[in-house]
Amino acid sequence: MCRFLAYQGEPVFLSDYVCAPAHSLVHQSLHAQEAKTETNGDGFGLGWYGEREMPGLYREIRPAWSDENLRSLCAQVRSRLFFAHVRASTGTATTRANCHPFSHGPHMFMHNGQVGGYGRIKRRIEEMIPDGLYEQRLGTGDSEAIFLAALGQGLAEDPVGAIARVLKAVRGLMSAAGIEEPLRFTAAYTDGESLYAFRWACDAKPPSLYYREGDTGLVVVSEPFDTRREVWTPVPKGCTLVARPGQGTSITCLDEAMARLAA
Amino acid sequence: MCRFLAYQGEPVFLSDYVCAPAHSLVHQSLHAQEAKTETNGDGFGLGWYGEREMPGLYREIRPAWSDENLRSLCAQVRSRLFFAHVRASTGTATTRANCHPFSHGPHMFMHNGQVGGYGRIKRRIEEMIPDGLYEQRLGTGDSEAIFLAALGQGLAEDPVGAIARVLKAVRGLMSAAGIEEPLRFTAAYTDGESLYAFRWACDAKPPSLYYREGDTGLVVVSEPFDTRREVWTPVPKGCTLVARPGQGTSITCLDEAMARLAA
Amino acid sequence: MCRFLAYQGEPVFLSDYVCAPAHSLVHQSLHAQEAKTETNGDGFGLGWYGEREMPGLYREIRPAWSDENLRSLCAQVRSRLFFAHVRASTGTATTRANCHPFSHGPHMFMHNGQVGGYGRIKRRIEEMIPDGLYEQRLGTGDSEAIFLAALGQGLAEDPVGAIARVLKAVRGLMSAAGIEEPLRFTAAYTDGESLYAFRWACDAKPPSLYYREGDTGLVVVSEPFDTRREVWTPVPKGCTLVARPGQGTSITCLDEAMARLAA
Amino acid sequence: MCRFLAYQGEPVFLSDYVCAPAHSLVHQSLHAQEAKTETNGDGFGLGWYGEREMPGLYREIRPAWSDENLRSLCAQVRSRLFFAHVRASTGTATTRANCHPFSHGPHMFMHNGQVGGYGRIKRRIEEMIPDGLYEQRLGTGDSEAIFLAALGQGLAEDPVGAIARVLKAVRGLMSAAGIEEPLRFTAAYTDGESLYAFRWACDAKPPSLYYREGDTGLVVVSEPFDTRREVWTPVPKGCTLVARPGQGTSITCLDEAMARLAA
Repeated sequence: MCRFLAYQGEPVFLSDYVCAPAHSLVHQSLHAQEAKTETNGDGFGLGWYGEREMPGLYREIRPAWSDENLRSLCAQVRSRLFFAHVRASTGTATTRANCHPFSHGPHMFMHNGQVGGYGRIKRRIEEMIPDGLYEQRLGTGDSEAIFLAALGQGLAEDPVGAIARVLKAVRGLMSAAGIEEPLRFTAAYTDGESLYAFRWACDAKPPSLYYREGDTGLVVVSEPFDTRREVWTPVPKGCTLVARPGQGTSITCLDEAMARLAA
Repeated sequence: MCRFLAYQGEPVFLSDYVCAPAHSLVHQSLHAQEAKTETNGDGFGLGWYGEREMPGLYREIRPAWSDENLRSLCAQVRSRLFFAHVRASTGTATTRANCHPFSHGPHMFMHNGQVGGYGRIKRRIEEMIPDGLYEQRLGTGDSEAIFLAALGQGLAEDPVGAIARVLKAVRGLMSAAGIEEPLRFTAAYTDGESLYAFRWACDAKPPSLYYREGDTGLVVVSEPFDTRREVWTPVPKGCTLVARPGQGTSITCLDEAMARLAA
Repeated sequence: MCRFLAYQGEPVFLSDYVCAPAHSLVHQSLHAQEAKTETNGDGFGLGWYGEREMPGLYREIRPAWSDENLRSLCAQVRSRLFFAHVRASTGTATTRANCHPFSHGPHMFMHNGQVGGYGRIKRRIEEMIPDGLYEQRLGTGDSEAIFLAALGQGLAEDPVGAIARVLKAVRGLMSAAGIEEPLRFTAAYTDGESLYAFRWACDAKPPSLYYREGDTGLVVVSEPFDTRREVWTPVPKGCTLVARPGQGTSITCLDEAMARLAA
Repeated sequence: MCRFLAYQGEPVFLSDYVCAPAHSLVHQSLHAQEAKTETNGDGFGLGWYGEREMPGLYREIRPAWSDENLRSLCAQVRSRLFFAHVRASTGTATTRANCHPFSHGPHMFMHNGQVGGYGRIKRRIEEMIPDGLYEQRLGTGDSEAIFLAALGQGLAEDPVGAIARVLKAVRGLMSAAGIEEPLRFTAAYTDGESLYAFRWACDAKPPSLYYREGDTGLVVVSEPFDTRREVWTPVPKGCTLVARPGQGTSITCLDEAMARLAA
């Protein structure tokens, strides 16, 4: 289990959200409160959009709490759209390539959750990745595999549908392999403009996910970074938060999208 | 605050103490129970005596809990005398050179504690280090400085006296600088044969320290690595555990040694 | 291209071969003379057999030339059979899991060479790895993939035949993909007792490989670590050096083994 | 010996100078041509001015040539004033804190050179650092010590004079200690506005240093990053390049400043 934060809005310094708040993401790397694991010390990452179509990435295997570069970078970089993630490994190695967020062209993705019995179906999940994208797989983890598989399923054109198709397929692989551990999936995706945040689990126990629409923009977090709980709204279980530029935010049903597939 | 372990006795695999027990030192790196900080993820180190007069050192800045090399090394190396340490920084950078244990020739030292206001008296503490040893200072932290200062005060010949002199001097520097934070000092020292474990604080709140004399030898730990509390004896506050080869263990008074200096 | 060293014989300190000679492997990490790349600074690794059936591994992403742990470990560890490797990446990321040697149970393998167009046939090569072994793939590189594929082809029972089958299959994949870059393969394999060293290339330009039978044992190297060229014998192109305990060394023909497969 | 680059002018992407040119600084990390050491693989660093008074810093212990974060950061960050440095250690450990550039408030400094016999006079050089600055010393190397000592000598108000005083004092310490190895000093300093580049050595063999005034601004480099040698002007030995905003560049004599001190 990990902790993450996504921001979309007027350009702000990353430090305002990642480092400064009392219970900032950096603080959560050492003292998460709503996660199964309190410590998220198995690497971290930042991804932000600046003047380029492609996001910048800074991913590192040290714990976020002691990384001087992270603090310095967050103090300098101002962005209208960025992701930040602190990682607690569910088994795969701590390498930069296994740290979130993952990017492909203008697309960016990060994940908090678990694919039960991943080792036993890793190969089957990887088979869902198209050849052209498989060449670009840099890491070994479940999250990157799901991202690339979803790109192959049309993530860019139909984010909710693509994620629904991939989750359904992964569930099928887990069942076929007799895996009883759950599939839990909380994630954020952007194409550089719109922001999607997913919250789903096969056992109705998805990791926590909140959002807040503030003065400068939208913030989506694994857990609030301050104590003003009233300003934070949970993303409902089985749902997706959608924020298209100029269209405000809306909640759409991921469960339904999966149910339609089943029909 | 950190967690550490020292072993002296028949040669055993390091993994038997460092990795294997339910609440092993590696486990304590993520879930310490008796420390001010539960997470000790700011680097770690091993020091062990093999066929050479000088100990081997393996120190690394990653957290101990995810280090494959640590597990592999502990499974291979058998030693009659070794130190292991997981670090929670009190401020200095996470570099290998700031990780414990520290060595000088056959001498080895590790520390758990804090020098209140270290930044303000760092230079004064360093002045206590003789020129010849100062050249060999590799890191920037308080623990290494105290070790080198103690070597200059005769640590090799009179361990209890040397530590008493250094602690007294550091207390003096702290007073002179108007520092009100405490000096707390739990540490282990060996010359490659005898083992000394110190427990002292200016405010009667030294970090915890326990020992156990078992079938194969003596183990000294910051906190027990199993739940059989009855087999572990606390080192009394203000005292030093002394274990010379062939002479069993004894407790000697560090407070008294300091008081004599004061006279 | 990388540089490596393998030793089999009376137990010696690793430092005698890895660190101490004028042109030691550590020196070659900065100044290789017979390699396409002079600098081999993309990680390194040690694997050695001690009291356990499984080897110990120390792999790290820093350059070998500045790694204090490597020097300390080599000064302490004495072994009858060990591998050491300094890496120059041909494209895959610098992670510990991509550093050589690789191990599986008592088996250990390291490689110097290149699989032309690896990115384009990575997936096809991975398909050669049996399911049970694929779960244990930790890295993303060509060398580990070839090792696991060879284990699936019977590396433990028939090392020369298994390597011949894998090389032939990889050549087939390269041809099918229209890859014109060469397949060059210099490698060492051991089951913890016997040592095999392979030298082969599809274009008759395999990386260099030498051996020396000295007072204490057999040494196989990418390039000699001293200037006494007369004591070093090249492993002939297309051949395998075989050293079974108590049976001396012999040269066997890898080319022939491959030709038999073709028939 | 190291390699570095400084830029002052219209805001440009760092990648245009650090990563893109044929013989870019990243290329020089592996294949320097005018340095005593071809490989500069002992860490690297970036420092740049953005919207804040203080520069951003990204320093890392991996070699520059394989660092994905460096490439991504350079592709995103646009700056009017930045330093980049690839390091070849002359003895001190490879830690982030020993990587260049060093910063203090808005001031930034980087160095290429050597202080002969540094270990023997490290303590004496450190004594030149005022107490308030000594607390902020993060590393252990000669370059940071010289920077902090120069700040104490008025680097902010009188850059050439302060460097002259420090070089003279260090030479005095070296003479007093009977050190015969040379003091060689090529460095860049900025207060966030003006840029100074120094080239001096006690033995008339200072490391190379060139500059170019191009379309968008001034570039100062250890060695040119392209083959158009005619556009690059060497900074004369014993001189300082001074570039104040709106005042163009000028060359001033460091040797004279030192001679005046001697008088």
